[in-house]
Amino acid sequence: MSDLRDGICAEAFWFNKEQCCWSSNDTQFDDEQACRQWYTWAELVGDSNKDFGAYIFKYLLYILWSLLFALLAALLVKVFAPYACGSGIPEMKTILSGFVIRGYLGKWTLLIKSVGIMLAVSAGLNLGKEGPMVHMAACCGNIIAYLFPKYGRNEAKKREVLSAAAAAASPLAAPLGGVLFSLEEASYYFPLKTLWRSFFCSMVAASVLKLVNPFGNDHLVLFYVEYRSTWSVIEIGPFILLGVIGGLFGAGFIRANVFPIAEVMLVTLVTALLAFPNTYTRMNTSRLIKLLFSKCGPEDEAELCDYKWNSTNDYSGSAPAGPGIYSAMWKLMLAYLFKMVATVFTFGIKVPSGLFIPSLAVGAIAGRVLGNWPSPRMDSFPFRLFCRAGQPCINSGLYAMIGAAAALGGVTRMTLSLVAIMLELTGGLQYIVPLMIAAMTSKVGGDRLTKGGIYEEHIRLNGYPYLDNKEEFAHTTIAADVMHPRRGEAQLQLLYQDSMNVEDLETLMAASDVNGYPWWCRETLTICWDSIRSQKRGRHCRDSLVYFTEHLVAGAVAARHTDAGASSTDGQPPALKLRRIVDLSPITVTDQTPMEVVLEMFRKLGLRQTLVTHNGRLLGLITKKDVLRHIEYLHSIDPHNLIFS
Amino acid sequence: MSDLRDGICAEAFWFNKEQCCWSSNDTQFDDEQACRQWYTWAELVGDSNKDFGAYIFKYLLYILWSLLFALLAALLVKVFAPYACGSGIPEMKTILSGFVIRGYLGKWTLLIKSVGIMLAVSAGLNLGKEGPMVHMAACCGNIIAYLFPKYGRNEAKKREVLSAAAAAASPLAAPLGGVLFSLEEASYYFPLKTLWRSFFCSMVAASVLKLVNPFGNDHLVLFYVEYRSTWSVIEIGPFILLGVIGGLFGAGFIRANVFPIAEVMLVTLVTALLAFPNTYTRMNTSRLIKLLFSKCGPEDEAELCDYKWNSTNDYSGSAPAGPGIYSAMWKLMLAYLFKMVATVFTFGIKVPSGLFIPSLAVGAIAGRVLGNWPSPRMDSFPFRLFCRAGQPCINSGLYAMIGAAAALGGVTRMTLSLVAIMLELTGGLQYIVPLMIAAMTSKVGGDRLTKGGIYEEHIRLNGYPYLDNKEEFAHTTIAADVMHPRRGEAQLQLLYQDSMNVEDLETLMAASDVNGYPWWCRETLTICWDSIRSQKRGRHCRDSLVYFTEHLVAGAVAARHTDAGASSTDGQPPALKLRRIVDLSPITVTDQTPMEVVLEMFRKLGLRQTLVTHNGRLLGLITKKDVLRHIEYLHSIDPHNLIFS
Repeated sequence: MSDLRDGICAEAFWFNKEQCCWSSNDTQFDDEQACRQWYTWAELVGDSNKDFGAYIFKYLLYILWSLLFALLAALLVKVFAPYACGSGIPEMKTILSGFVIRGYLGKWTLLIKSVGIMLAVSAGLNLGKEGPMVHMAACCGNIIAYLFPKYGRNEAKKREVLSAAAAAASPLAAPLGGVLFSLEEASYYFPLKTLWRSFFCSMVAASVLKLVNPFGNDHLVLFYVEYRSTWSVIEIGPFILLGVIGGLFGAGFIRANVFPIAEVMLVTLVTALLAFPNTYTRMNTSRLIKLLFSKCGPEDEAELCDYKWNSTNDYSGSAPAGPGIYSAMWKLMLAYLFKMVATVFTFGIKVPSGLFIPSLAVGAIAGRVLGNWPSPRMDSFPFRLFCRAGQPCINSGLYAMIGAAAALGGVTRMTLSLVAIMLELTGGLQYIVPLMIAAMTSKVGGDRLTKGGIYEEHIRLNGYPYLDNKEEFAHTTIAADVMHPRRGEAQLQLLYQDSMNVEDLETLMAASDVNGYPWWCRETLTICWDSIRSQKRGRHCRDSLVYFTEHLVAGAVAARHTDAGASSTDGQPPALKLRRIVDLSPITVTDQTPMEVVLEMFRKLGLRQTLVTHNGRLLGLITKKDVLRHIEYLHSIDPHNLIFS
Repeated sequence: MSDLRDGICAEAFWFNKEQCCWSSNDTQFDDEQACRQWYTWAELVGDSNKDFGAYIFKYLLYILWSLLFALLAALLVKVFAPYACGSGIPEMKTILSGFVIRGYLGKWTLLIKSVGIMLAVSAGLNLGKEGPMVHMAACCGNIIAYLFPKYGRNEAKKREVLSAAAAAASPLAAPLGGVLFSLEEASYYFPLKTLWRSFFCSMVAASVLKLVNPFGNDHLVLFYVEYRSTWSVIEIGPFILLGVIGGLFGAGFIRANVFPIAEVMLVTLVTALLAFPNTYTRMNTSRLIKLLFSKCGPEDEAELCDYKWNSTNDYSGSAPAGPGIYSAMWKLMLAYLFKMVATVFTFGIKVPSGLFIPSLAVGAIAGRVLGNWPSPRMDSFPFRLFCRAGQPCINSGLYAMIGAAAALGGVTRMTLSLVAIMLELTGGLQYIVPLMIAAMTSKVGGDRLTKGGIYEEHIRLNGYPYLDNKEEFAHTTIAADVMHPRRGEAQLQLLYQDSMNVEDLETLMAASDVNGYPWWCRETLTICWDSIRSQKRGRHCRDSLVYFTEHLVAGAVAARHTDAGASSTDGQPPALKLRRIVDLSPITVTDQTPMEVVLEMFRKLGLRQTLVTHNGRLLGLITKKDVLRHIEYLHSIDPHNLIFS
């Protein structure tokens, strides 16, 4: 569909340019030269001469098609499934941490997101499909889980299914990286059992991909790098620099993303307007990354490889640069600026959008430019230490690869999964240490500027009740400081276990708008209530005693009736036993428990609230929101955080 | 040192054969042919002719040197550091789960293990150095942690350091695999914070390795595979078969390992006796694995690659086998049997020993034999489906690689970390799916035969209090069923908060041999006690009231004194306040809490005990050992487990 903006295949309109040229056996297919079966729109209307008018015509059609695709995507999302927009990973994280967003993983979201992401990518918007892929996989997992009551009815089990599904989505066809992504980014709590299940899912997904082989090429490695040359220890310097650049880009990206104001059509228009003239922004982003990762050889004729080769300096970086290099560098720097801004605006608009590929592209451009920058004389100071004649020296493709990893790391703050994904994408096992350095630097650098990755920031922006499990809690408050009711607040409203009647309970429930009670949730109680009312109207009335204990103690009944002024228990309506809806094992902490421990319990046990007791007596309770508010309060009074937030 | 058993380098006695031949510029160094500077012991005593006597002489010296090294290793371990034997990983797992083994991570263990592992490997014993490496790294971590009070004094923080150190040990120089190994195998609870720290450690370790470059070769990939050919979907069948073989080997190995009876010298003698005559067992195990992983080309002259090459069938597997192949296959099968038995006995003896390399070797032999087995006519049935003329078909090196992964998987039951380690060892990114299949099959197959990997079995064998965090708890017992005291048992001995005197407390402590109390540990109390006694002998006496509350309530004192027969509080020795040693935030559960939840709390919060309450009143307590005993009891009455255990 992306190539539809350029032209159409005469043989079969659903072929893209590459397939069209393949099927017509034009093996010397080149991006710039059209092949016989492929007709550009300009050629179709007979305006095939390459003058300025034709260029403008192509330009206009390119923009019109882009706008059409973007409009369709935006309309679909707006009308049918508002949850389908964005990458979906912040929401996935929130759901996996125990929060329920109804319909977020439903079939409509899945359907609209699948179609929407195709349209959005075809519109040439600066977005990737990896994040949405993870969201769609989770939708599949959720829908399938409902077929098996064991998983569909148990929220904890369903979260395990979602974690495994996220792993199977395998961003960028990297099975190992997919499992690690699910572990490090998507999932909240990841037991080893889930690790194995994710591993299994990922294995099946990779096997099926191999079996189906949709792209017609035999290997799964997307940006396979051919070079096997080594790197020098001195190059750690530039690698760290790339890490810093990536971290800066990531932090800037995250900051800019808190203003999601831009509109789909405007962004598409501006993207199409600006992307068309520059070769590097016009081409498919994946192809751009592949180009940037590649190494120059003497036989290369591309602009990026325009070195003045001669017999003595026969490797990239040791040959003087030709005019093509300078022109390519300028174009790349413009592309860098454009992509950086476009990525920011695109991620905020209301279409399905991911950020893996755009981030990789931005970083790859930075790396390639840095790798080519010194226009190096290989006998000058730092280089003569590690450049040997006849040996490859600075490999700008490698720099592009490191830069790409750093940018993605800066945006998402992944470490282990980032390195695994980059390894599986490129096959560059030699470069594991540079990749680790870039990932670490961009994470550390980025963390100094914004508190978390893009997903955490989006969670904060949307105000989801997400308890960050990466932060350390270094304060000395105790449970009594956080619980409610505090000193001066209204007392807790209590339900007594065997001394309230239906009327008391109804009054209490009407007076409060709390949805979750420590021992049951409002919904359960309401359902229970309604069924009692409809079935037993005749026998139970508003005076019926309600008890939550195993057996009704006669003394309690008598006491109650004495209070109510009745002299005997005869003639009273039968008591109502509600024990089966009571949670008999609430989690409790003492009032002296350090908040550090309370936080650990909330995180690791996935609590929504805990009771606070003193010497066995109930004092109050702490909810997840109390904890979140407390952490925010502590941050706001912490002088270290004032500088940056 | 290993080569010392064969001969000595004239130039520098500390060079091994390879370095010796390098330094004398014998570039066509071959394992079989000696180079000029290298003198075998037979040559040194002048007996250089290659007759039967010389062979016996070499054989004898080989055995004697082996015995000498083994004796030294065994003596060092026995005399100085008994904890230095074995791989240390089961104990690491136990320590990381919260149990303390004093001295296990001390400096003596580190020192003796370092020397011992060198000696044991040099003795030609069938063992690896990877597990011991992890243990030694943890020792370093532990020693360094003591330099920083923040980490040395806090057991939880120290465990984080140990996890990170284990990752830095990076089995087989695989930085990513090291982190994952620490995550999947060594560590008990692995928060993301620890993941990043481990990642950082591993990065620094890999960078230093690159900087120092101890082996003089530029790349870190140990068994780099050169082949880049693809694999066919039909081959999934044999890969699964290899997985099953690996799982069977692993299960058999684990079963056999529960009888650690063999003695070091005997094992060494038998190993040396049997290993010498077979080329494949005599050579260094790492070199054997490298050889087995390699692919045959027409120019190869090794016995393993003795194919009848001709112009039409120019790839391994599509050429008919020559006589060398058959002889190699026989030798490999003998080597398989020998290595299998030797690995089992070696792992049980009292020297430092790991099992990565031996397991890989066993599996690689199995794979290579299977890959060469069919002596295939490539135009016969299953093969003609995927073998194309002029294309590589069955790559027996790939089968060796898959087999090796399967065997290691069968023994350790790793999944994700296994695949990562194999990838980093071989660089075979094309083969990630076969590796995943082998890992999964061997794990699933092995798990049907023994309950856990070798490390879990060793933990069980040694009776360490380790709460397996991989198993699901699917029973419906509640806390009241597990706690002590049970019905009919002696009541809990209680300390009252403000109504006991010193004498009462001493009597109570003398009567019980319990070491840990829910609110403090015996040690703290004893230290506190001793310091009080020595400092304040004059003021406190056995009648002193002990109170654990914030303030002494006058009524309580009066009540106490009334009980004791005293009429007034005047003249009484001053009361003793022990509040500061009381843990004010013990974890409690109600008696109705399902054991599934209790188990989760023990695992995730790292508890050693929890109090059981009912309506706020203390009923009893559950310790970690109670939980372990309960799980064992449930297993023993479960009919599904009776078959295998």
